[in-house]
Amino acid sequence: MTSAVDSLLEFLRFPSISTDPKNNSDVRACSDWLMKTLSGMGLSTERYETPGHPVVVAKNVHQKGKKNILIYGHYDVQPVDPVNLWTTPPFEPSIRNKIIYARGSADNKGQMLAHVMGVKATLEKHKELPVNLTFLFEGEEEIGSPNLRPFLEKHKAELPADLIVISDTGMVGPGIPTLTYSLRGIACLEVLIKGPQMDLHSGVFGGAVMNPLLAMARLMNSFHDPEGKVKVEGFYNNVKNVADWEKANWKNLPNSDEEIKTLTGVKKLFGEPGYNSREHTWARPTLEFNGAGGGYLGAGSKTVIPSQVILKISCRLVPEQKPAEVLKAVEAHIKKHMPSEVSYEIIPGHSGSPYYVDPFSDHGKAAQRALQSTFHRETAFIREGGSIPIVQDFKEVLGADTLLLGLSLPDCRAHSPDENFPVENYEQGILLNQYLLQELAK
Amino acid sequence: MTSAVDSLLEFLRFPSISTDPKNNSDVRACSDWLMKTLSGMGLSTERYETPGHPVVVAKNVHQKGKKNILIYGHYDVQPVDPVNLWTTPPFEPSIRNKIIYARGSADNKGQMLAHVMGVKATLEKHKELPVNLTFLFEGEEEIGSPNLRPFLEKHKAELPADLIVISDTGMVGPGIPTLTYSLRGIACLEVLIKGPQMDLHSGVFGGAVMNPLLAMARLMNSFHDPEGKVKVEGFYNNVKNVADWEKANWKNLPNSDEEIKTLTGVKKLFGEPGYNSREHTWARPTLEFNGAGGGYLGAGSKTVIPSQVILKISCRLVPEQKPAEVLKAVEAHIKKHMPSEVSYEIIPGHSGSPYYVDPFSDHGKAAQRALQSTFHRETAFIREGGSIPIVQDFKEVLGADTLLLGLSLPDCRAHSPDENFPVENYEQGILLNQYLLQELAK
Repeated sequence: MTSAVDSLLEFLRFPSISTDPKNNSDVRACSDWLMKTLSGMGLSTERYETPGHPVVVAKNVHQKGKKNILIYGHYDVQPVDPVNLWTTPPFEPSIRNKIIYARGSADNKGQMLAHVMGVKATLEKHKELPVNLTFLFEGEEEIGSPNLRPFLEKHKAELPADLIVISDTGMVGPGIPTLTYSLRGIACLEVLIKGPQMDLHSGVFGGAVMNPLLAMARLMNSFHDPEGKVKVEGFYNNVKNVADWEKANWKNLPNSDEEIKTLTGVKKLFGEPGYNSREHTWARPTLEFNGAGGGYLGAGSKTVIPSQVILKISCRLVPEQKPAEVLKAVEAHIKKHMPSEVSYEIIPGHSGSPYYVDPFSDHGKAAQRALQSTFHRETAFIREGGSIPIVQDFKEVLGADTLLLGLSLPDCRAHSPDENFPVENYEQGILLNQYLLQELAK
Repeated sequence: MTSAVDSLLEFLRFPSISTDPKNNSDVRACSDWLMKTLSGMGLSTERYETPGHPVVVAKNVHQKGKKNILIYGHYDVQPVDPVNLWTTPPFEPSIRNKIIYARGSADNKGQMLAHVMGVKATLEKHKELPVNLTFLFEGEEEIGSPNLRPFLEKHKAELPADLIVISDTGMVGPGIPTLTYSLRGIACLEVLIKGPQMDLHSGVFGGAVMNPLLAMARLMNSFHDPEGKVKVEGFYNNVKNVADWEKANWKNLPNSDEEIKTLTGVKKLFGEPGYNSREHTWARPTLEFNGAGGGYLGAGSKTVIPSQVILKISCRLVPEQKPAEVLKAVEAHIKKHMPSEVSYEIIPGHSGSPYYVDPFSDHGKAAQRALQSTFHRETAFIREGGSIPIVQDFKEVLGADTLLLGLSLPDCRAHSPDENFPVENYEQGILLNQYLLQELAK
């Protein structure tokens, strides 16, 4: 197994940050490495250029009568700021207590490479795979996959899929096999709030001019009631209640209140009244501020009234909310609540629909057997709070459902400093891939 | 007069930016030039080293029985960014339509050199001055004069002063002689608002955890009522009403609503109800946000719940508010209104007392006569909204009041690109200095 871990460490050394143009060549170098690794295993590989970062596709020799399985992953990663909070540098992977620390270790390089190494193991043992496999690896997941859907539409014929498999989610706890059957969607926008035409001296003008930061605070404060329920008109239209079988299954999971407190260091939770923290994060929609501000934020003071400030908003959506409808409602809310002394501009962001798949379908049952063989325990059925918009794209363009077989742990710190992935989970993923392809072939 | 203008152009060519260490030698070269100019006029000059930039002092031969007048100015200037917005380079003075464009032309080289050239003219005519004059020119005003108060304390005995004169403020309009008799004080602090121990994935945790940006918005929103009055308990204690004579005088000044709209590009003003924009900026205290925010503020989106966010607050104070008391009230307000789901830390900032001097004292009347002789118009009595903390230092250390006789115009663009100072204002300043010393000697 050492060589599989070494391969992962190599993969993690590429700073393949997709959002920052200065890392473009790193993203490409990472795709080079992937091409070489996949073709070295005997797969036929192809790199497709997009307006952004390239898509890498690899296949075994497809044969009639075999099931078509498409395994998706992404080789791009999140930015690393604040870099000073990392124990070891984000792109110099470090193994401490059998846990790999590096940006991308959990999200998603570790999980995707487990599938690659599983396939490699099968090919080494059996020379062939029990299914027609297509690996589809993109380099733009962390910026919302802007070019993936066009790619799927253009190359649909080359991407046969009875089923999609993605490992880019989490396990509810160490050693607990986990099948994710629902994801929240997302809808983003930002608001540029504009006051005076230049930064003003707060002594000369302060008191007579609306400070755009005050306008921003007033707008921000209008979105939620004191307890945290979203006040945007129509926001909760179409939101479905959690089913009884889900509630029953979730009762057996570790306590999410305690888990969230431990993971985040927060002493007191906060959320929409009438729901527990599992429901808050898995089954209820949110309106969150991901970035807000302006003016002087450096050391010391600079007594200005800023000219412009920015507010970045993302909504997490649950079945069956529609991103376009939610964004429309949020825009109408902004129009209604923005103080009249400032002007503003809305900059649209990315969005993706929420997802729901039946975990008791034939494919779902095959996955459960593979999970049982790997982990020797019953599967936990969960939703996740994050968004994987491409799951919806796969459904719409390729006509296939997605099985989400997550391998990262709750404290994986995805998107945060000290992101990590245990060596054990990586090895379990390699095993799971082998059982899964066998089970799906039945 | 040509030679006086030439001297100013020479003076303006030094890029004496005090905040940037790479200009240290320019600041020194500028002080060399000043030393040479002052000693060339027959004054005894001395340069005092400080931990930062030097202080230049120049005196005539002091005689018993004459009044001691100290004229203060600063030879350092603000940075020039964004330099591409300058019509001509900031340190290559350009005269267009009889207006001098250069960094420092208004703030403060033009105004301070007018005093120097006024003294030069008097000495050329009369060989001596009617008063015991001390010029005190510092090179650190634009960075908050960190070494001036210690300097004053150390050299108090060498700085006799019955009165301080400073021209580093503005005229209400072209040709209108202006005496500033009150300045707002300042009290700053910042609040670090702390939520989860790291940035969180807003999909995984969103809905169950208080977002520090939401906490910040709630706090920000608690400081003012909807119309802009500050709601901090005790904030308006000690605030004096504007006197009837002030209101009567201010009625004759140009319309400040229109002036503020033109200068800032703001279409609709905003401020504490019951006061006009003159009063808002000159005579009412404010609580302003100079910087606020956190999370991801770069291009595109990063769907995080930030761990920490910052809020920078400055209050402008009016007579007779005390900075320490106001800060205490603001801190108590923060304690009361900070949502309990987050923790916080207060970082103290700088502060300075508001200033008020009687414009109808003997010195004030002398200044009015000098202004009348120079401009042939009645003096406008104004307050200013900004803070000049050294005025308070002069009062406390040297025991002298300050007359603020500003010479720059409202559109002088101090601290901004295309800073400017009309040749006429410079020449009026030279004349004013001559009348002023005569009147003060009476």
